[in-house]
Amino acid sequence: MTDAIKEVAVERAGAHATHATLDLLAVEEPLEIRISWDEAGEPRLTTVAVTMRTPDNDDELAAGFLFTEGIVRRRDQIAGIRSCRSGSIRVELAPGTPVDLARLVRHAYTTSSCGLCGKTSTSALRAVPSWSLPPNEPVVDDALIRSLPASLRRAQSVFDATGGLHASGLFDLDGRLVVLREDVGRHNALDKVIGTELLAGRLPASERLLIVSGRVSFELIQKALMAGIPLLAAIGAPSSLAVELAREAGMTLLGFVRADHFNIYSGGERVRPRSRFLYG
Amino acid sequence: MTDAIKEVAVERAGAHATHATLDLLAVEEPLEIRISWDEAGEPRLTTVAVTMRTPDNDDELAAGFLFTEGIVRRRDQIAGIRSCRSGSIRVELAPGTPVDLARLVRHAYTTSSCGLCGKTSTSALRAVPSWSLPPNEPVVDDALIRSLPASLRRAQSVFDATGGLHASGLFDLDGRLVVLREDVGRHNALDKVIGTELLAGRLPASERLLIVSGRVSFELIQKALMAGIPLLAAIGAPSSLAVELAREAGMTLLGFVRADHFNIYSGGERVRPRSRFLYG
Repeated sequence: MTDAIKEVAVERAGAHATHATLDLLAVEEPLEIRISWDEAGEPRLTTVAVTMRTPDNDDELAAGFLFTEGIVRRRDQIAGIRSCRSGSIRVELAPGTPVDLARLVRHAYTTSSCGLCGKTSTSALRAVPSWSLPPNEPVVDDALIRSLPASLRRAQSVFDATGGLHASGLFDLDGRLVVLREDVGRHNALDKVIGTELLAGRLPASERLLIVSGRVSFELIQKALMAGIPLLAAIGAPSSLAVELAREAGMTLLGFVRADHFNIYSGGERVRPRSRFLYG
Repeated sequence: MTDAIKEVAVERAGAHATHATLDLLAVEEPLEIRISWDEAGEPRLTTVAVTMRTPDNDDELAAGFLFTEGIVRRRDQIAGIRSCRSGSIRVELAPGTPVDLARLVRHAYTTSSCGLCGKTSTSALRAVPSWSLPPNEPVVDDALIRSLPASLRRAQSVFDATGGLHASGLFDLDGRLVVLREDVGRHNALDKVIGTELLAGRLPASERLLIVSGRVSFELIQKALMAGIPLLAAIGAPSSLAVELAREAGMTLLGFVRADHFNIYSGGERVRPRSRFLYG
């Protein structure tokens, strides 16, 4: 993680004195994501996005981004990934991969943490997942859900000395960590997780639980849906649009997850309450 | 703030039982920002961005966004602002306002919470402020800085019942709140603050202190610089690039600001330590 953290000299101002010290910062740097492909025998190359990210797992970030945006639909559509130079990465598409330039234009007028297009209807904003979620499955004990924040923190504490990184962790149904990724951007952290699973041939992630360290926007739900993840647990709050989309898609969305409680915003049928588990 | 908060039915799962309750969510909805102008007598209209925002202070958000992106340089370049329909807002530019389409293309390949263009050199990413910061001024007592988080929370507590909103507050040199704005996106909250000051004719904000509720990215520093704000205090951590840009520009950047301490990442000459204040 040396690329992800940078040490700087700072002054620490206390109530009585100021002294010089060192502080660890989360690294933020631009990454240009490009795709190359052949069109009627002609080589084509285009920039798809520039994202401000923490430099680590760039291959997974690029693969995950292209997948959750619906530009790449399957693992075998990626023929290779090359870091062309510092700050740029090129994903080579396999011959025959359809390239929908209209989909690329989704990014043409975008700002903010959304990754959305120039249309204001949210249904028009959504890439369509290759899979739908298994209804009512899997079912997870609520005690397991309440244990996820501590599991995430244990895994994250190794890395996040900065206080500036978002974490995204994928767990199996026994509560074992499958993959953890961190980034200054919460969407990047999730794209890194999904890219890891895509490149390993493990999508859809229909028997996985996702936990994220912060708040949940529309965009995070959309990305999780693309990966076929049935349950998203967040330590922070969801937005109104995140709840709407989760309910429409039948995804289980949990917020404010703590060791002793959590809120169920959608898909409560996948949560087995302790009382029913013990006595029912 | 009714448009900014939405009540939903949820289940609250405790360690012993689950019960139905109500929860307040931060509203997240897309806003399409468009500009209209005349070019050689022909009316032109183009979409500049779609941002996922909390619907409140849309006029100020649109004005602030156009200003911090360098598309609008002065208050008098905005002839009018109209909410055309739900989810869309149009800013009419005054006759003679130069429209730099290349600057609009900055957004053409952007994702994440950055608002940056398709170039990977950060210097190429930056819009150029109309003002430079006054060197070594203003000078602020460290006790005033340590009081800012509580002041922000007091002002914010009225609004943020959701746990899902970022806040951005502008204070005068006596620690009095000038303007507070909230949003699901931290960059939107700051654009709303800066748009308020632009529309009121109060830029550059060279005698103001900015405090933000979360972390500080490159983009927040860039926006604050565009508004001529000399000091940014954050409750969260800055990124590496935020510190680099603040140091280059001579902006005072403070992080992890608490009632009893804070870190000085840049521009410590604008902070008057208590010890010097009391005994020096």
